[in-house]
Amino acid sequence: MLDAAMVREFTDLLSENGVITDEVGLRSYECDGLTGFRQVPALVVLPRDAQEVAGAVRLCAKYGMPFVARGAGTGLSGGAMPVADGVVISLQKLRRILEIDVENRRAVLEPGVYNLEISKAAAPYGLYYAPDPSSQQVCTIGGNVAENSGGAHCLKYGFTTNHVLEMEVVLADGSVVTLGGPTGEQAGPDLRGLFIGSEGTLGVCTKVTVRLLQTPETVRTVLADFPSIEAAGDTVGDIVDAAIVPAAVEMMDSLAMEASEAATGAGLTVDSPAALIIELDGPGDEVEAEFEHLTAICERHGATRLHVPTEAEERQKVWKGRKAAFAAVGRISPDYIVQDGVVPRTRLAEVLTRIAEMGRDADLRVANVFHAGDGNLHPLVLYSEAAGEHDAAEKLSTDIAELCVELGGSLSGEHGIGTDKACSMPAMFSEDDLGVMHRVRLAFDPDSRCNPGKLFPTPRLCGERPGKYAPHPLEEAGVIERL
Amino acid sequence: MLDAAMVREFTDLLSENGVITDEVGLRSYECDGLTGFRQVPALVVLPRDAQEVAGAVRLCAKYGMPFVARGAGTGLSGGAMPVADGVVISLQKLRRILEIDVENRRAVLEPGVYNLEISKAAAPYGLYYAPDPSSQQVCTIGGNVAENSGGAHCLKYGFTTNHVLEMEVVLADGSVVTLGGPTGEQAGPDLRGLFIGSEGTLGVCTKVTVRLLQTPETVRTVLADFPSIEAAGDTVGDIVDAAIVPAAVEMMDSLAMEASEAATGAGLTVDSPAALIIELDGPGDEVEAEFEHLTAICERHGATRLHVPTEAEERQKVWKGRKAAFAAVGRISPDYIVQDGVVPRTRLAEVLTRIAEMGRDADLRVANVFHAGDGNLHPLVLYSEAAGEHDAAEKLSTDIAELCVELGGSLSGEHGIGTDKACSMPAMFSEDDLGVMHRVRLAFDPDSRCNPGKLFPTPRLCGERPGKYAPHPLEEAGVIERL
Repeated sequence: MLDAAMVREFTDLLSENGVITDEVGLRSYECDGLTGFRQVPALVVLPRDAQEVAGAVRLCAKYGMPFVARGAGTGLSGGAMPVADGVVISLQKLRRILEIDVENRRAVLEPGVYNLEISKAAAPYGLYYAPDPSSQQVCTIGGNVAENSGGAHCLKYGFTTNHVLEMEVVLADGSVVTLGGPTGEQAGPDLRGLFIGSEGTLGVCTKVTVRLLQTPETVRTVLADFPSIEAAGDTVGDIVDAAIVPAAVEMMDSLAMEASEAATGAGLTVDSPAALIIELDGPGDEVEAEFEHLTAICERHGATRLHVPTEAEERQKVWKGRKAAFAAVGRISPDYIVQDGVVPRTRLAEVLTRIAEMGRDADLRVANVFHAGDGNLHPLVLYSEAAGEHDAAEKLSTDIAELCVELGGSLSGEHGIGTDKACSMPAMFSEDDLGVMHRVRLAFDPDSRCNPGKLFPTPRLCGERPGKYAPHPLEEAGVIERL
Repeated sequence: MLDAAMVREFTDLLSENGVITDEVGLRSYECDGLTGFRQVPALVVLPRDAQEVAGAVRLCAKYGMPFVARGAGTGLSGGAMPVADGVVISLQKLRRILEIDVENRRAVLEPGVYNLEISKAAAPYGLYYAPDPSSQQVCTIGGNVAENSGGAHCLKYGFTTNHVLEMEVVLADGSVVTLGGPTGEQAGPDLRGLFIGSEGTLGVCTKVTVRLLQTPETVRTVLADFPSIEAAGDTVGDIVDAAIVPAAVEMMDSLAMEASEAATGAGLTVDSPAALIIELDGPGDEVEAEFEHLTAICERHGATRLHVPTEAEERQKVWKGRKAAFAAVGRISPDYIVQDGVVPRTRLAEVLTRIAEMGRDADLRVANVFHAGDGNLHPLVLYSEAAGEHDAAEKLSTDIAELCVELGGSLSGEHGIGTDKACSMPAMFSEDDLGVMHRVRLAFDPDSRCNPGKLFPTPRLCGERPGKYAPHPLEEAGVIERL
């Protein structure tokens, strides 16, 4: 599809070193954090500003080429996996922090800014950016917008969608729109919220205004070991019932701790069945009042150890133990899949029992890390590609996600649907539900050239017959092609 | 358009007393809380359950008739104003609370349930529903969803969109979809959030699942008088800087207090230039710690009186003084318009100075009530219909909303755009921005029969020439008609 004249057009449009066409260069974009799925793109472009992004999108429109926007490629659901014969638009050169508006507590960012850089830039003013995915040192705000990323502190502070006020977005035809507004209070339908979490299927974000929060006066972190997963789960329930809203309540099981401790030496008790990492933040006297409640609750549920770091450095070490857990699993398994599902918090014990059974049946180990406060699980399915276990691991991982739906939860909490779970969408949504999603996507991108194959189930991906959706007047008129 | 045979079809479809056709009956639906705009509908239907709603929508589709869903008709932007030759679908008979799920802290509701009824039903379990519009005794959850309603406590607890997990929605063609999911963690694009605040233009909500919160252990309310609006504004700034997150921070100016005190006898100081009502809630020891901070800040800014009710009844009286303020203005003026705009909190003093000037120029009084914590103003423009002041009042009110946009804010915080401000949308959004909103609306409702004329500027309403938007492939193909 792509010929030399077309490549020249991209080269002419973009600044120096803006186009990658060589096999080795292209290959480094073949997958994101979901490494089990790979596809070499036809072309990678690296625009240097929003104008170049819009220009590249317009060239794709001219030639009817599909494209995939890519931040740092740390996503875990394959949302940035390239399309064959398609263009990857890397946003890694759009890395400027355009403004830190201290008075109004907001920051204006290019999409390639790393998540943690925002808080670093805001720190001199006593401000920070709240959503903190475990990958925050290397993931970008543009990717966070695409996936509506959360993080350990989303229990108290919410997801990306709760912190983005306004965005500049290039649509598939190259037009540029503003979604949201500077104060975050919306007039009209919330296209801002619609775009956040749409996984790159509605356009390319080229500028983001985020809300900054004041750095809490006091932070206290508790690492508590428990004699069982149930005791840890009951502790979480009682914390919620006591109307304490911790900044974070994370749970790890013993296999996750074993992996993390081997990699980080964070001080986790590897033979403990379960641990909670609970963080309180706010004004000093409030935090002290909550802290007393909290430790009493932990003790009531038989906590076998309460570690309360007093120095910031020690606290960061505990968090390193949690945040490095995914990568650390590489120490105890050659390959692994990070799953992401949600169950009602009241069904945590049940889902864990079922996951353990399913792991035994599939003869695969599963480590568990969760945002326990809001029922968001991250089961880590351990496998060996070399031993031919990939398909079994992928099936187990998918079955776990669909189990979450069966238990009244969701296919995804914060990692997105992407390539990984597009075919599971009918487990959660009816044909009519998917039909309206599809039509909304076409309102932004009538040719489905914007990150095709992600999020929405398609016959090609899922092996289903075409004609899945109820017909819509726009389809019947032949203007919208059915997926 | 509507003939006797069509009326008979509606009558056959609906339960007894399900159709209103007489002039007097129809006239009682001619407007909502924006009483300056009126339109008698062709027909009013009162379905008794979701099936009857879907049936009525299908009949409208069959005859190509526009329709307007209506809750209690308390909206202030004319969102429920009927369309000539159109049907009003009143949801006032869908009043069942279908479930209070104590364990998972959520309630499943029909759309006609009154906002306050939710908290009353949840109270025996120590739970409540957080968003609390001033009209909460008489407004419905369905209307709250349509307008994304807030309330005094949205500073800490957020808007309707932050509390709705899942909805059942009838689309314009009569199909029924589920938006969102039971845990509130979204998989796929956030159509739930898109629908909330879309002012009835995307479909009719027939079932809502909301999150319930635990009733706070302690609530403390402070009514503080200040020597000037600036002193009250600076107090709000310092409260925010101290990282205190009150449940509510409301401000009233002296004219608003004069009106409210005359109606309620709530104990407001009518000759004080400004007052704040600040509420703290949470566990007892936390609230006490915050309360000490708070009163010190008020005193530092010269508060002339600090009233701290100790009994629940006394506290409710203070809130009555605030929540009745809109209606109370009827005591001091024969007619009034409640405006709703947002400015960055840092520009509150500036916007008030400008509003006072504009009021003097128009020779009209303006009372001010605000959610000061988040910069959401409610200027009340006082006028006399009988004295021929309506058009001048409407112009002043619109100018105030557009001033908010000019100062970096928003046309609306929580009352919606509706009929009132549709023509101001181009002050906030570009043609491309409006174009994508319009296409998204058509993805739900390709014939624009669902609450037409609201929210989106149209030539008919705004007197602009057709062809306002950039052409889109679906428009060029002739399938979507331009507004």
